[in-house]
Amino acid sequence: MTANLAQKLIDDHRLGGDRSVGAPIALRIDQTLTQDATGTLAMLSLEAMLSGRVKTEVSVQYVDHNILQVDNLNAEDHIFLESACRRFGIWYSRPGNGISHVVHMERFGRPGKSLLGSDSHTPAAGALAMLAIGAGGLDVALAMAGEPYATAMPAIFGVELTGELPEWVSAKDVILELLRRHGVAGGVGKIIEYHGPGLRGLSAMDRHVIANMGAELGATTSVFPSDEATRRFLSAQGREEDWKEIAADPGCDYDQHDHIDLSALEPLIALPSSPGNVVPVSEVAGEEIYQSYIGSSANPGWRDFAVAAEIARGNVAPPGVSLDINPTSRQVLQMLIDDGRLGALVAAGARLHQTGCNGCIGMGQAPAKGRNSLRTTPRNFPGRSGTAEDSVFLCSPETAAASALAGKITDPRTLKVPCPKLEEPVRAPQARNLFEPPLPERERKTVRLTKGENIRSLPDFDALPDALSLPILLKAPDNISTDEILPAGARVLPYRSNLERIAAFSFERVDPDYVRRAEAVRAQGGHAIIGGRNYGQGSSREHAAAAPRVLGLRLVVAESFARIHRQNLINYGVLPLRFLDLRDYEKLNPGDRLEVEGLRAMLSKGGRIRLSCSGRAIETEHGLTGVQIEILLCGGVINRRREAA
Amino acid sequence: MTANLAQKLIDDHRLGGDRSVGAPIALRIDQTLTQDATGTLAMLSLEAMLSGRVKTEVSVQYVDHNILQVDNLNAEDHIFLESACRRFGIWYSRPGNGISHVVHMERFGRPGKSLLGSDSHTPAAGALAMLAIGAGGLDVALAMAGEPYATAMPAIFGVELTGELPEWVSAKDVILELLRRHGVAGGVGKIIEYHGPGLRGLSAMDRHVIANMGAELGATTSVFPSDEATRRFLSAQGREEDWKEIAADPGCDYDQHDHIDLSALEPLIALPSSPGNVVPVSEVAGEEIYQSYIGSSANPGWRDFAVAAEIARGNVAPPGVSLDINPTSRQVLQMLIDDGRLGALVAAGARLHQTGCNGCIGMGQAPAKGRNSLRTTPRNFPGRSGTAEDSVFLCSPETAAASALAGKITDPRTLKVPCPKLEEPVRAPQARNLFEPPLPERERKTVRLTKGENIRSLPDFDALPDALSLPILLKAPDNISTDEILPAGARVLPYRSNLERIAAFSFERVDPDYVRRAEAVRAQGGHAIIGGRNYGQGSSREHAAAAPRVLGLRLVVAESFARIHRQNLINYGVLPLRFLDLRDYEKLNPGDRLEVEGLRAMLSKGGRIRLSCSGRAIETEHGLTGVQIEILLCGGVINRRREAA
Repeated sequence: MTANLAQKLIDDHRLGGDRSVGAPIALRIDQTLTQDATGTLAMLSLEAMLSGRVKTEVSVQYVDHNILQVDNLNAEDHIFLESACRRFGIWYSRPGNGISHVVHMERFGRPGKSLLGSDSHTPAAGALAMLAIGAGGLDVALAMAGEPYATAMPAIFGVELTGELPEWVSAKDVILELLRRHGVAGGVGKIIEYHGPGLRGLSAMDRHVIANMGAELGATTSVFPSDEATRRFLSAQGREEDWKEIAADPGCDYDQHDHIDLSALEPLIALPSSPGNVVPVSEVAGEEIYQSYIGSSANPGWRDFAVAAEIARGNVAPPGVSLDINPTSRQVLQMLIDDGRLGALVAAGARLHQTGCNGCIGMGQAPAKGRNSLRTTPRNFPGRSGTAEDSVFLCSPETAAASALAGKITDPRTLKVPCPKLEEPVRAPQARNLFEPPLPERERKTVRLTKGENIRSLPDFDALPDALSLPILLKAPDNISTDEILPAGARVLPYRSNLERIAAFSFERVDPDYVRRAEAVRAQGGHAIIGGRNYGQGSSREHAAAAPRVLGLRLVVAESFARIHRQNLINYGVLPLRFLDLRDYEKLNPGDRLEVEGLRAMLSKGGRIRLSCSGRAIETEHGLTGVQIEILLCGGVINRRREAA
Repeated sequence: MTANLAQKLIDDHRLGGDRSVGAPIALRIDQTLTQDATGTLAMLSLEAMLSGRVKTEVSVQYVDHNILQVDNLNAEDHIFLESACRRFGIWYSRPGNGISHVVHMERFGRPGKSLLGSDSHTPAAGALAMLAIGAGGLDVALAMAGEPYATAMPAIFGVELTGELPEWVSAKDVILELLRRHGVAGGVGKIIEYHGPGLRGLSAMDRHVIANMGAELGATTSVFPSDEATRRFLSAQGREEDWKEIAADPGCDYDQHDHIDLSALEPLIALPSSPGNVVPVSEVAGEEIYQSYIGSSANPGWRDFAVAAEIARGNVAPPGVSLDINPTSRQVLQMLIDDGRLGALVAAGARLHQTGCNGCIGMGQAPAKGRNSLRTTPRNFPGRSGTAEDSVFLCSPETAAASALAGKITDPRTLKVPCPKLEEPVRAPQARNLFEPPLPERERKTVRLTKGENIRSLPDFDALPDALSLPILLKAPDNISTDEILPAGARVLPYRSNLERIAAFSFERVDPDYVRRAEAVRAQGGHAIIGGRNYGQGSSREHAAAAPRVLGLRLVVAESFARIHRQNLINYGVLPLRFLDLRDYEKLNPGDRLEVEGLRAMLSKGGRIRLSCSGRAIETEHGLTGVQIEILLCGGVINRRREAA
């Protein structure tokens, strides 16, 4: 029986289950990555459940999110993370090394391996034919502790690429085209698998761009075959021995099909404030801009900066335009220094920022209110930039650079210069000694965790009660993101190791009074939230589940959920239910009370849960696996492990 | 009659007055600089009093302090400042160009000119034989409006330099030696003038290092002659035509003398938490460090980074050490890219930060609590790093780099490598088109100021009442800095264009309850503060006077005042008085009430003011000039200009 690439990768890691879409499967995890914003909670979880070293082949802790350090908290988190790495046998990538996704690809990525990462853009490693999935920190901690990752068998969405990208059109435009066609929920429950002759023109880093932003379609992950481009990339990294060819079987099939003729693409741009609002750049050309931002895991490669440098060379960004350059890894920065292209950018007026995630997650470089900011980043959810009323567009580095030099949105095809021809260097500079490898066993055992005073143990959570009577405190619109549920940014993220403290920011952009109302009923059993479609899209940060849980959230009823956030809710003991009748979403309102009795038996017995509101029945389904039900009954995954121990 | 260099520069700019120390003098101001943290208030003041263009030869607005942009406020301030520059005929240096002091020296500094700057490190330009004085933003606005700068004739403190710096010892060690000898108040009321054969070995940027940190001795300014080193520097900037020789008359004298034999110096370091706590590096060698920070206006030159790069070349900062590189200007960054030294630093593990002031003013890079941070910055006041309980040392780039590579405080003379020999490049790269010149008159007139919603007009201040009855709300210790009166840092500075909002942070590190108590008596006539020696040292930010004034501060009685802060108090209508009997400082306490009647007549009549406290007389002197008395009677300098108009 032929298999597509995604099925082959899953088969190689599947412990039981089968290939039928939606079936519960459990995956063996070879590698994990954590970043600092999610890593401290993951390490605290690990502390609670692991006495020895991690069981994975490779686990890496990156520090890329909170690196501004406006007070002592970031620095103390870094120290804590480093001590946890030494304690648990994890690689530590120090601040300044770069963004987890690109650095992992440079240094650790291996075709055919599975990777679970506590960051929603972990699927970027699908560029190297890895099975790379984003999850909450708790799930990643479980994987490090040796547990398989439980999920549902995704549908495989085959996207055939043919033709060749025209001048001034690049990988970012490919994924923007897919977002234009399918929207931000077009990948939910699916793996996007790219195939076809068009792949030949896409380098490994081009594929990273596309796989990275598969997350914006809500996809479980994206995969590319491991081929000559993959070999070239690993060879440039001095790791050709890690290469092996992996491809779909000839004649395999997919659950869904699409086709992109690369030759027919044009420069695209996502308008504020969703990655799904995609139009041709030419439609909005001429609008004045305040900022052009080049960087982030969505355009991380050397070529993404090099092409901008070639466009900028000899020119200067006009007055009033902030040209922000955010190198993504130490390696990329070094290459741009060595080949003179960083110099060209600086001479063109660039502001050069620290290597890392930075403004992509609202960590600096926030634009002025209402002024247009063009970014090569993956997301433009409202307020994610750090500015509440922002106006952020997503585009390719070609479009961002052309627009920066013109001071207005510019289709790069209208530039009067030849399109830069760039050859990926055959050898990339390495800084291997800036990664701290796992300690030898004897040294590891004597390491103690170094906890700053803001690093607090997780609070205890109670088991799911058998009867709930919960006021609805908030009715969220469709596609509410985890950025809106719990903001990132310089003001909030420093408290990510302290759930009680960070909970004060929950929903603050959506409903500044939510926290007060939640506190008011916290001791009376908590509250419920009503959501629309794709509840909890975006970032994987589990704080978006844990913080409202701390405030008493017990139940979310929505039309549908984003995959990672739903699992995070379950992990923290919050029951996620789906409306069977969408009219109930319209009928229910804040202030109404949702009630249910005999909940525990009902959960174990079938797929339906009947709630009531003022005597009226609200029909819902839970879609939970047996394991997920167990977790919920215990009050969360930590309680379950404690009970199992 | 022979004159020393400082006297000659003053004579060239003096409008009336004479050379006798302490005499009131008024100085013609040729150039001004403002930075963004103080510039927005300066521009708002200018708006209130200037209809035409600035009257100075050159005025430049820099953006170097608030460039993290964690929300929209910074960006909107930049837009406001740019619009004010276009409105008032001021040069605008965009974010990314670098720190005001070094950029001003590269691009605008001219031997023999006077410079007033709203930043306490403005005296750095004394390196080019400028008469460069730091002042509050209001004073700089007045200078831009064409008014002379009123001050008291300083004493001239001649420091003779002989010999030649040994290997591994550099300019930073010279000024640390002066701080070791004379402490943080050793320069109060003085200009430090450097002379002697030792000057020959000091480049213009070396002199910048020394002049910059004259501010840490409390000096009015520091001056160096304009000689061959000055010519070389201006020639490298492509501005040799701006050079002229300026030197003290042979045989001139000074009010105070000291002598430093450069050959006898060794690497020095200021211990936490005062620039005056200087000891030899060898005394603390071996202490573990968390951070090594290279940058800031105190070590701004290409050679300061180049020497660190040579020490770091081929090595790597060990695990747990954060090596932070903060390029000071676009030019310096470009030079380090071009000569490969930036690459060497990055390969050694450096975290490369945006060009600007950054961590020096608590804008990022805050260390972990209690962990040692070595910095080439000028100040280590408690908490200035952004970490409340910090442990910051000040040292040379040689010491910082050597310590970074060793992971512990290291005397660079113990390194096993040859001391780097560096030749200043004869031509420095220019980015002239990244400065926006003043607009032509016709265009200028049509410019409107672009004010974000956080940019608020100054509140009205009332005139000085004839009778005061004020509770003492706070008793400050000696050497309290403006950082403690009103913190800088990422959390506070964004509100600098909004006095009511920023006032909420007043004295928060010293007495978190101060604001509440001040608000409680604000409507009952306000309050008084008691201070010790050198009240208000450090940064020139006038918010440290204006914010407490907004909260009702009317009177500060102290043993002595830092010069800039005292003038800022006067400018905002707060009466600064000095104890005649220091035992009164001991006797007075928070809760006591200070009273005076017939104050206005007393001020105009003589130098003494008798206060009373519970019937007991408290004798004070004011030392105010006629102009300062007028300002105080009006309730501040803006009221006075309004009354004069």
